[in-house]
Amino acid sequence: MTTQELVSQINLKKSFLCIGLDVDLQKIPKHLLQEEDPIFEFNKAIIDATHHLCVAYKPNTAFYEAYGIKGWKSLEKTINYLNENHPEIFTIADAKRGDIGNTSTMYAKAFFEDLAFDSVTVAPYMGKDSVEPFLAFKDKHTIMLALTSNEGAFDFQTKKVENLELYKTVLETSKAWQNANQLMYVVGATKAKYFEDIRKIIPNSFLLVPGVGAQGGNLQEVCKYGLSKNVGLLINSSRGIIYASKDKNYAKKAAEKAEELQKQMEEILNSNFSV
Amino acid sequence: MTTQELVSQINLKKSFLCIGLDVDLQKIPKHLLQEEDPIFEFNKAIIDATHHLCVAYKPNTAFYEAYGIKGWKSLEKTINYLNENHPEIFTIADAKRGDIGNTSTMYAKAFFEDLAFDSVTVAPYMGKDSVEPFLAFKDKHTIMLALTSNEGAFDFQTKKVENLELYKTVLETSKAWQNANQLMYVVGATKAKYFEDIRKIIPNSFLLVPGVGAQGGNLQEVCKYGLSKNVGLLINSSRGIIYASKDKNYAKKAAEKAEELQKQMEEILNSNFSV
Repeated sequence: MTTQELVSQINLKKSFLCIGLDVDLQKIPKHLLQEEDPIFEFNKAIIDATHHLCVAYKPNTAFYEAYGIKGWKSLEKTINYLNENHPEIFTIADAKRGDIGNTSTMYAKAFFEDLAFDSVTVAPYMGKDSVEPFLAFKDKHTIMLALTSNEGAFDFQTKKVENLELYKTVLETSKAWQNANQLMYVVGATKAKYFEDIRKIIPNSFLLVPGVGAQGGNLQEVCKYGLSKNVGLLINSSRGIIYASKDKNYAKKAAEKAEELQKQMEEILNSNFSV
Repeated sequence: MTTQELVSQINLKKSFLCIGLDVDLQKIPKHLLQEEDPIFEFNKAIIDATHHLCVAYKPNTAFYEAYGIKGWKSLEKTINYLNENHPEIFTIADAKRGDIGNTSTMYAKAFFEDLAFDSVTVAPYMGKDSVEPFLAFKDKHTIMLALTSNEGAFDFQTKKVENLELYKTVLETSKAWQNANQLMYVVGATKAKYFEDIRKIIPNSFLLVPGVGAQGGNLQEVCKYGLSKNVGLLINSSRGIIYASKDKNYAKKAAEKAEELQKQMEEILNSNFSV
């Protein structure tokens, strides 16, 4: 999917919501545990109930790997279901990979070819030649960690590197990498005031923003500083939506939570863009 | 496995060799492609031929994930084969994971419980609360990226962070994390002169050292600066050993290459330690 196609979907749906499919067997409704593949059944119901309200889904691979081969199968069925039924939706493998050249190429193949995701999250620590192999895949996107939403973000990311914070150095440096136009960045919503600085470095790149909702981030604040002329934001919510209810009506409740966010986004889009 | 058990194995085998199982279907002998699980058959033959020469095996998960569920099955069969037949060997899931707290716990479960590896490699970018969940698993080890062997290492890792290079900041900072005694570090062999500085910060921690052989690192140089009183080094070689030959005798040739390295290690151990 191209960036322009993603932007079109945002304008069409009046939403820049990404729903995180971080599925924990201990947190899904009990009746699903009788199914052969409870994780996929859960995802399918959530997708069926929410696909008109969001523009992206983001399975976090850890939650699938934790169940071994069974989990990997659930992930494969989920991405296949999305690609078959909702090819217009942007898909993110939240895998936070990153390794040296030939290994990064293998990871890129795993997520872009074998599983056919539109994008994957990667860690920047190993630098240019660990990220460029992902960027070599046409119309695929690489979402690099910049400023994350956890406490540990202050251990290294906000430390000054030759007078510029590490996360800003990551942003500045990566702009020069080959196919940098396919780069997006993870920026945690809990740090809304940083968005202003970030937009000075990367005015147009898409930012994947976790931390709205469960982690306390504020949507209006993030948009105030983070919106670009192409919207340029994907706001992720995982637990706040998918675990809205543990009852049989969980998908309906998830859709209600998603719609709450979508309505706020619609308002923000209407007041910021004359479309 | 405890660190002491690993040290005992090093002393017993006169080897601190780690063999990287980065198996690419395009690089293994053609006759194996007829097998139901060529990757596992290849690994099994390599393990059978080399287990007496090394103390660790390190499958790089990218090479398995690239083949989807089939690849994940090969990985599972490989680790099961190792744990059943060679429980004394230290196993490393070279996965370079790292995410926020509850997600890191899921990754830790995937590699420590579901697959029963002794250790996993992780990226430090997200800081303390992304690594400590791995350290919470008793007798399991977390191998954190410090100074990697690729060109991109100079993008961020060697940049000065408040007057200390980022990789040294990572080393210094992580020493204070909970269960830091279960931390090991990845340090690339191509930068042997850095080992002296690194040992000033972490005199005793084990270092996993890729880059000897194919990537041009020198074993003697690394040992000169990197050995600790407990040896404290695991020298990894992947392609240099497992792809020594593409013929039917590939396992024998791999063993010959492994033995070359083991003999050099024996000499180094004998001249540095009176055991």
